[in-house]
Amino acid sequence: MNANSSTARVALGLSDRKLDALLVSGAPNIRYLSGFTGDNGSLLITPERAILFTDPRFEIQAAEESPSCRIHIAKGPLTLDIVAAIKRLKLKRVGYEPARLTCDAYDSIESRLPMGASLEPVNGWIEQFRMVKTPDEIARIRRSVETNSRAFEQTMRRFRQGMTESDLAAELEYRMRRLGAEKPSFDSIVAGGPRSALPHAQPTGAKLRNGQLVVVDMGAIQDGYCSDMTRMLFIGTPPPKVKRLYAAVLEAQLAAVAAVRPGIQATKVDRAARQVLKGHGLDRFFVHSTGHGLGLEIHEPPRIGKRDKTPLEAGMAITIEPGVYLEGYGGIRIEDTIVVTESGGEILTPTNKNLYIV
Amino acid sequence: MNANSSTARVALGLSDRKLDALLVSGAPNIRYLSGFTGDNGSLLITPERAILFTDPRFEIQAAEESPSCRIHIAKGPLTLDIVAAIKRLKLKRVGYEPARLTCDAYDSIESRLPMGASLEPVNGWIEQFRMVKTPDEIARIRRSVETNSRAFEQTMRRFRQGMTESDLAAELEYRMRRLGAEKPSFDSIVAGGPRSALPHAQPTGAKLRNGQLVVVDMGAIQDGYCSDMTRMLFIGTPPPKVKRLYAAVLEAQLAAVAAVRPGIQATKVDRAARQVLKGHGLDRFFVHSTGHGLGLEIHEPPRIGKRDKTPLEAGMAITIEPGVYLEGYGGIRIEDTIVVTESGGEILTPTNKNLYIV
Repeated sequence: MNANSSTARVALGLSDRKLDALLVSGAPNIRYLSGFTGDNGSLLITPERAILFTDPRFEIQAAEESPSCRIHIAKGPLTLDIVAAIKRLKLKRVGYEPARLTCDAYDSIESRLPMGASLEPVNGWIEQFRMVKTPDEIARIRRSVETNSRAFEQTMRRFRQGMTESDLAAELEYRMRRLGAEKPSFDSIVAGGPRSALPHAQPTGAKLRNGQLVVVDMGAIQDGYCSDMTRMLFIGTPPPKVKRLYAAVLEAQLAAVAAVRPGIQATKVDRAARQVLKGHGLDRFFVHSTGHGLGLEIHEPPRIGKRDKTPLEAGMAITIEPGVYLEGYGGIRIEDTIVVTESGGEILTPTNKNLYIV
Repeated sequence: MNANSSTARVALGLSDRKLDALLVSGAPNIRYLSGFTGDNGSLLITPERAILFTDPRFEIQAAEESPSCRIHIAKGPLTLDIVAAIKRLKLKRVGYEPARLTCDAYDSIESRLPMGASLEPVNGWIEQFRMVKTPDEIARIRRSVETNSRAFEQTMRRFRQGMTESDLAAELEYRMRRLGAEKPSFDSIVAGGPRSALPHAQPTGAKLRNGQLVVVDMGAIQDGYCSDMTRMLFIGTPPPKVKRLYAAVLEAQLAAVAAVRPGIQATKVDRAARQVLKGHGLDRFFVHSTGHGLGLEIHEPPRIGKRDKTPLEAGMAITIEPGVYLEGYGGIRIEDTIVVTESGGEILTPTNKNLYIV
C-alpha cells in the first residue's frame, strides 16, 4: 500500500466533487490513506496537504507511521481542532463520510462551522478505492491467508476429543499469532453439535464430543490485512445426512468460485451458489450472503449477495462461503478467500476442503 | 446483569423524557439491556415492549439470548424495518443515541419517518445506568481481572530473553483464553526499549533484549466484562534512572488510588496522580488521563481526567494508570482495575506492583 499515492488520488479528485477538502473518519480509511494505525484519528485532505489529527497518546507513533502528513496533536476532542483548521484554511465545502461519522461528531463540527462553510456527504469514496487491491495488498492478504491455514493445520494435529470449543479457538488464535498474525480478524467461531447451526456462534466451554459436527470459522490479520476461512470437522463417523449436506454445500461453493471472473456482477456469483442449494432443496436454509470483500476490514464491499450488482474486477479480494443451517441439528459452511484475476478467480486458501474426520 | 429490569427502567423513564420510545444502537448498550451479543442489532424500547431487530444470521441466537424481547428478523437493512415499526406503533418522539448512530443510519431512518414523528437525541442515558455496576457485574469484572492477572503470572514464568514482543503477547492472550476469557479486551501492548514510550504501541517481531524496559498492558473479556492492567518489566539490572522514574509513577498511582472514594470528582483523582508527578518534574511527560471506567467496554465513563467532574459512586469500576513517556528512551505506566466501594477504592488487581526484573 502506498499511502502517499492514494492520498494524492483523493486530493486530485476533490475538484470534480466540488469539494475543498475531505474529512476522513473511518479508521481503516485513515490507515489506507495515511498509514496511521492508532484508534483515535481524523484525516483532513485538501488539494495541498493532508493533516492527521490525533491525541497525545499517539504523537510519537503518528510521526513514525504517517511521515507524509502534517500531524496535529489535539489536547481535547479532535472535532474542535478540525473546525479550527477548516476556519484557518478557509475551507468551504468539506466532504465527510456519513457511514463512518457518528451523529455526535457531525453535530460537533457542523454546529461550529463559520458562515458559508458546509459538510457534504461523500459515500464510499475511499471504500471504492480500497475495493480493488494493489499487488502489495494482495501479497499481504495472501500471507494472512497462509498464516491462517497453517494455524488451522497445526491445531488440527493437536485436536483431541474432549477439548472445549474455547480451547480449540484459543489454540487456533495462538498458532496464528506465533506464525506472524497480529490477531484474529474476527472472533473465531468454533461450535459443535446443534450450535454449529448458529452462523455466528461464539465458542463456549462445551466439550467437543463424538458424533458432533463442528464448524471452525477463523481469520487472521497480518500486516493489517484480513483472511477468512471456514472448515468443518466431524468427530467420529459422519452419518449419511451430514455427508449429503456437506456435498451439497461444497458443490455450491465450487459453483460460486467457478463463476468468479472480471465483469460478472457480485449478485450473479451469489446466485450460482444459491441455485445449487435450490437444486438440493436447501436454499431456504442458506440465510446469509455468499460472501464479502475483505482487506483492511473483514467485511468490505462488494457484498456477494442478492442485491449487490457491482461488477467484479481483477484485484478484488472476496470470500465465498455458502452454508446451510438446520436449527436443532447443525450447520455446514465452507469458505475460502479468493482474489479476482484477469481470467477468473484464484483460491488463495491452500487448505484441503474435505470434511475433516477427527 | 438483569436485562429485564434495566429495560423496564428505560421503559419507565421514557415519559419523563417526553419520549414514546428509545432506539438503542450501541452494541454494548443493546447487550446490557437485552442480553443480545450479535454484532448487528438495534433495540426499540416502548413503554409496552422491547423489540430486537437483527438479521437472519442471528435468528436462533437472538431467541436464546433475549427471551424477554420480541425478535424481529430483517431481510434487508435494519433501518427500514425500524421505520416500519415506528409507523405501525404510531410512535411520535423516538429517542436515539447520537454517539452510537452513524449519520447514514440516522438519515436512513429520519428521511422515512411519517409526518409528526421525529428522532430526538438522547445522550449517554444507558451509559449512565452502566456506570454504576450491579454486584453481578462487579463479580464478573473481578473474575476477568483474576483471569488476566493469572495469565500474566503464568506467562512471566515462561519469559525468556530473546522472545519477541509478539511472542510474549501471543502467550499472554493464549493463557487468558485457557483460563476462561473470551478474548483480550483490547490489543495487548508489549513494547520493549524506546518503543515503551508509545502509550499504545502494538507488539512487533522485535526481540526483547537485555537492558530493556518492557511495558505490558493487557486485559481480558470474561462473561462479557473487561479487565485492564499494566505492569513493567526490566530485562537485566535497571539503571538508577529507571528505578527513579518507576518509583515516581508508583507513588502517583498509589496517590490516585488513595484518593478514590464515593463523592470525589473524577478529576480530583486525576489531579492526585498529576500532582505527584509534578513534584518530580515529570507531569509534562504524563500525556493521557489517569484512568477510565470499564465494564462491557474497555473505555466507559467516567474518564479520570482533567475535565470530568463526575462524582464517583460506590459500584463504579475504573482504572488508575498514570504513566510517563520519554521519547527515544522509554515509558513507564502502572495500572490496576479498581472498584469504588462505600468507604474508598478496592484494588481488584492482585498482581504485585514491583518492577519485574527478568
